[in-house]
Amino acid sequence: MRDSSAANRVRIDLGGSLLSFVQIESMKSHLAAGQQRLESPGEDFTGWVRLPKEFNKQELRRIKETAEAIRHKCDAFVVIGIGGSYLGARAAIEMLADKGAGPAVYYAGHNVSGTYHAKLLEELQGKDVCICVISKSGTTIESNIAFALLKDLLAEKYGKEKAAERIYAITDPKSGTLRQEAEREGYESFAVPENIGGRYSVLTPVGLLPISVAGIDIDAMLSGAAEISDPLPFEEDGAAQYAAARNLLFSMGKVIEIFEICEPGMEYFSEWLKQLFGESEGKQGKGIFPASLQLSTDLHSLGQFLQEGNQIFFETILNVESPPRDMVVPESADESLAGLSMNQVNRAVVLGMMAAHQKAGIPMIRVDVPAMTPYYFGQLVYFFERACTLSGYLAGVNPFDQPGVEKYKAEMRKILSKL
Amino acid sequence: MRDSSAANRVRIDLGGSLLSFVQIESMKSHLAAGQQRLESPGEDFTGWVRLPKEFNKQELRRIKETAEAIRHKCDAFVVIGIGGSYLGARAAIEMLADKGAGPAVYYAGHNVSGTYHAKLLEELQGKDVCICVISKSGTTIESNIAFALLKDLLAEKYGKEKAAERIYAITDPKSGTLRQEAEREGYESFAVPENIGGRYSVLTPVGLLPISVAGIDIDAMLSGAAEISDPLPFEEDGAAQYAAARNLLFSMGKVIEIFEICEPGMEYFSEWLKQLFGESEGKQGKGIFPASLQLSTDLHSLGQFLQEGNQIFFETILNVESPPRDMVVPESADESLAGLSMNQVNRAVVLGMMAAHQKAGIPMIRVDVPAMTPYYFGQLVYFFERACTLSGYLAGVNPFDQPGVEKYKAEMRKILSKL
Repeated sequence: MRDSSAANRVRIDLGGSLLSFVQIESMKSHLAAGQQRLESPGEDFTGWVRLPKEFNKQELRRIKETAEAIRHKCDAFVVIGIGGSYLGARAAIEMLADKGAGPAVYYAGHNVSGTYHAKLLEELQGKDVCICVISKSGTTIESNIAFALLKDLLAEKYGKEKAAERIYAITDPKSGTLRQEAEREGYESFAVPENIGGRYSVLTPVGLLPISVAGIDIDAMLSGAAEISDPLPFEEDGAAQYAAARNLLFSMGKVIEIFEICEPGMEYFSEWLKQLFGESEGKQGKGIFPASLQLSTDLHSLGQFLQEGNQIFFETILNVESPPRDMVVPESADESLAGLSMNQVNRAVVLGMMAAHQKAGIPMIRVDVPAMTPYYFGQLVYFFERACTLSGYLAGVNPFDQPGVEKYKAEMRKILSKL
Repeated sequence: MRDSSAANRVRIDLGGSLLSFVQIESMKSHLAAGQQRLESPGEDFTGWVRLPKEFNKQELRRIKETAEAIRHKCDAFVVIGIGGSYLGARAAIEMLADKGAGPAVYYAGHNVSGTYHAKLLEELQGKDVCICVISKSGTTIESNIAFALLKDLLAEKYGKEKAAERIYAITDPKSGTLRQEAEREGYESFAVPENIGGRYSVLTPVGLLPISVAGIDIDAMLSGAAEISDPLPFEEDGAAQYAAARNLLFSMGKVIEIFEICEPGMEYFSEWLKQLFGESEGKQGKGIFPASLQLSTDLHSLGQFLQEGNQIFFETILNVESPPRDMVVPESADESLAGLSMNQVNRAVVLGMMAAHQKAGIPMIRVDVPAMTPYYFGQLVYFFERACTLSGYLAGVNPFDQPGVEKYKAEMRKILSKL
């Protein structure tokens, strides 16, 4: 798995991007400064760059041991978090977990819907429950409310003292209301690393604890990321080339990037991508609008628009070369299909779409993913985090801040204070 | 429920659209021709316009009786279809069905993933299964393959003859391979109406049979649609005003419409909206790109882009006034939140976001939905179908065709024929 040959890596294919090699190479010098910043140890919020190789072994062992204990303690595990505090974990779990092999994983506090949470609490009634609350500060209203609801449920089920043994917290290492509560009540807890922002945190305890509870091999995940974490010359650096390509396409009027997945299990990976790029680049009036769709599902809903609509977008296709399962098309299907494998047909759909879109002059970037495994999940995450950072530097924005998200919160607080 | 006063209707609020009443009214005369076409009996593909009021009573009774029989016959009901053949039903079922009150509803043939279908067939092993295949022609590859897989499963479970009693087909009334098979094998079947396209078919047997199997009141759904199916003067015609507003915003450079839902149960309703508008308008190089997001979930992922990113979009917010369930925020939550209801907090989030976006100069359209009920689902569907048609006429496209979707299929067939 650790063979560094191209076949064992996430690879990028710019053949359909409508960009020439000369155009892409022209960005090389513009990218160099960003590449250097990424590697320089003092740079803010780049803690994720070296973490896969330098992850503290003791901390990693504690994550796995805690996850194993949780797997034995409950049949329902609730992850409480929103945005960067849960999307990466959910992306991994929906892509990789074997349903039924451990506790069922539920999500709470990623919205503030009374309907959603009332139904969730009902569903948990007859189950043995553990919860993991993820919040740097502890004051995010969605997770704060859901955490309170779930604590009440646990206290009712097990009594307050025993409940504390079923609560796990991932929060700021030193300060904040959740850190204080964890210390006071004796929750087992982990630290959100200080030099890593939420949307770059999936390969830290933030993502790794819930992912490990779902029975997924987090060592393999970190190896995958580590495998591609050494600097490469531009000609071999897919992430840098991708960053160059998307900035060039944007400058040509392609203001939307559509992330397209070919396996339904990757839906939340595309949600994670939308946050990563949208929140990193959407500032100062800039940014490529991130959208997503599923193949072939959405060719029957948005295919018409893609083929003949307003051509303001480019497509980034996440092409899984060997999906985990396959089936043979039965004899009773149409004779042109019977006997083929479904994955062959799926591939024909994607290639057929790409051929038709090429004729329509639509720029496409293909990202080839050898398989849906923890190892390649780690690579994918690292590949896109690196690409996104380089892309943001190219576009002249800070890819690690999110100053705009405070604005609606201030308005919301004004409204809440009147209630 | 049939009170025609504004409070009992889906309503549109253009107060945050940044458009003046004069601007919107300036479109009145441009819309008149489209409004007339919609009402004229000979117009192609407008069978859905009068259907809610004129639905054949005998057909409706047969749908409900068949649904009732299916509910007694199985604990797993599989809907096989893709695009317009399943999205409307799924939107209704995920928004309105009580989980556990009837057979669990599964979906197949909305993709061609071997992994997805292998897992689905495993999940169905221990269950009593009925299936409903929805395809006008029967040749759509995704549903054709899934139907073959499910037929094999039923034949194995019950023998071929008994299996036929568990298969329901919704297809062309006269021709096509699925119609022929249904007649030959004796499947109970329903007709896809001839003068209604897939994306406008949710209030026909295509949507109504699966929705009724899920235990949802389809009479109320049709009444809701019927309630708003009479022509109105422009000043009271929300759908026409909405069509005017979105075309005006597009002409001002707002090339993306983001449909925003405030309740997670409406996720598939926004998928349905994306097909409706994307496939109706995305042609001749035209169309507003349809995107979607969930509040408050995605304020923690895309909120930064909305607030400060590239301002090429407008927002259409589906605001549910009385969600079905609610919960009180417990005492252990932050003191500024404890004692409030979650729905109050949710509303404060949405209003806070709108206030912040207004300051940023982002155009917003609010659609107020009194409640998440079958009656208002029917209204919503009819409201948007009407708005979409009028909007397409305004933009100078045929809102009922989809010539571009054949193009990738032709390329795909070339690839398949070589396998």
